Amino acid sequence: MRQAGRCLPEYRALKEKHSFLKLIQTPELAAEVTLQPIRRFDFDAAIVFSDILVVSEALGQPFSFRDGGGVQMKFVLRSGRDIERLNVDGMIERLQYVAQTIPMIQKALGGRTALLGFAGSPWTLANFMLEGGSAREFTAAKTLFYSDRRLFIRLMEKLTSAVTEFLRMQIDAGVDAVQIFDSLGGNLAHNVFDEASGHWMTRVVSSAKDRVPVIVFSKGTNGNWEALAKTGAHVLSVDWTVRLADIRARLPPPIALQGNLDPALLNTTPEVVEAQVRRILEEMRGQDGHIFNLGHGVPPSAKLENIQSLVATVRSFL
Amino acid sequence: MRQAGRCLPEYRALKEKHSFLKLIQTPELAAEVTLQPIRRFDFDAAIVFSDILVVSEALGQPFSFRDGGGVQMKFVLRSGRDIERLNVDGMIERLQYVAQTIPMIQKALGGRTALLGFAGSPWTLANFMLEGGSAREFTAAKTLFYSDRRLFIRLMEKLTSAVTEFLRMQIDAGVDAVQIFDSLGGNLAHNVFDEASGHWMTRVVSSAKDRVPVIVFSKGTNGNWEALAKTGAHVLSVDWTVRLADIRARLPPPIALQGNLDPALLNTTPEVVEAQVRRILEEMRGQDGHIFNLGHGVPPSAKLENIQSLVATVRSFL
Repeated sequence: MRQAGRCLPEYRALKEKHSFLKLIQTPELAAEVTLQPIRRFDFDAAIVFSDILVVSEALGQPFSFRDGGGVQMKFVLRSGRDIERLNVDGMIERLQYVAQTIPMIQKALGGRTALLGFAGSPWTLANFMLEGGSAREFTAAKTLFYSDRRLFIRLMEKLTSAVTEFLRMQIDAGVDAVQIFDSLGGNLAHNVFDEASGHWMTRVVSSAKDRVPVIVFSKGTNGNWEALAKTGAHVLSVDWTVRLADIRARLPPPIALQGNLDPALLNTTPEVVEAQVRRILEEMRGQDGHIFNLGHGVPPSAKLENIQSLVATVRSFL
Repeated sequence: MRQAGRCLPEYRALKEKHSFLKLIQTPELAAEVTLQPIRRFDFDAAIVFSDILVVSEALGQPFSFRDGGGVQMKFVLRSGRDIERLNVDGMIERLQYVAQTIPMIQKALGGRTALLGFAGSPWTLANFMLEGGSAREFTAAKTLFYSDRRLFIRLMEKLTSAVTEFLRMQIDAGVDAVQIFDSLGGNLAHNVFDEASGHWMTRVVSSAKDRVPVIVFSKGTNGNWEALAKTGAHVLSVDWTVRLADIRARLPPPIALQGNLDPALLNTTPEVVEAQVRRILEEMRGQDGHIFNLGHGVPPSAKLENIQSLVATVRSFL
């Protein structure tokens, strides 16, 4: 789901020498970090080492990481003028490092492993940019959505163009599939999910779906499965708080489902991981279109023997 | 749902003079803060001004607030010895300030307004105590649950006794109903929700339900509605990410439902609040057992005219 890197000693060694931003913005380093978990675990797919906020930065709103975790944007997006200043045309130029990273990874993968590109959903980017960084409760984007719809739409038009262009760039550069992270979609009231997030993702998906498979992950989503299916995505990622077979019953094929092991299990033991992986595989036995995965990213505290147990259990399942 | 206090100028004035812990541990001050939102908005119910972690503190694990938000426990609960040291017998003595606060509030309310007591669920308390405070992702309690079930059960037995006794104390002191906050129940995989949280809440509920109505709020819950109903609670609180009428269809009366306006709406305008409150009331028209409420706590940034609009819209709805 997300880079396994943070739990690997070889990643930590690189991280001691370079900042996170240096790692994602230097093609050789980003390629190396992308490949590290593949070398160790031989997953079926790699995901480009990056961050959803590189789009915000390339639009003119830089970010950094706070001590103790969380993101700090250099300024808060407040006014129509701030929004006008976001520069979609210049963005692609500033994101060339991603376009350069992708062929390096593909060359190393040699066609044996799929490579995924990704981007944040317009709604998720709007939240970080209007809030000015991470927050316990994100409220600024919702307030704009409910209070000044015209300005909200102006921002979403720009972010939708930006995300569309960024995914196009990654597809042109050679990724095999793309994933859209709607990390804050789950914060929305069910009756406005489509207007505030789903609608804009639909536009992003429609521009990519004829070229590569598109995966959508709307974290913590609850009553919005049908709205998510309507985006046109080929695959929906599912977190661990629901029974995957229940979602399958609600959303029949051809849409595929990806998930849904609780990532916290990677802090336990190989035996516990094996049992819980088997439970999900049994639950989905005989069902088409299931991609086994975690329900969210690999925690930095994950034990390597547990990741190995996960891979071995999936590979040996008959 | 939670104290309206933090958005009130009269609360902020008190908060400048006293720390949060001083406010909740001094009966006169806690009573005053409890009454402030009732004086201003004349809600149908008040909730004792307190914090779920007073139980942890009284058990011997103090906490404080970090600069910039979040809770810091004085130490991390790590071993069986740490768990043995938690002192349930001494706890009630140390929580007498809550027992003293309740009759003061009831006297001021004069029987016109219901008073709610509350406690955190055993699972939620275990998360804070094993993690050592707030965390971006709570993993320690899950790791213990999956890796050392015997020790997990030992801790949960203690916390279940503690929460049961604390609610009994509040009922003895005169609250009209109690609410259990399962704030971290939504982090659990659906297949272990009952074992890790629901089961322990059931024991807490069963000891209180014959004396007063019991409300359970499992934040971010997703696939666990039936397990929550099984706790025996009279009322389930519902957040804003689902359609309340859908949950009603899934859980027929006599169980009542409380919710489910997005609290972020209190940052918008009275007109937007009125429209969204009406939407929920219309959705539940003709259905028994609906308590109108927010889907979570009042944000500190809530505008007072929006709370007024909410109350006026509910009161005038026919």
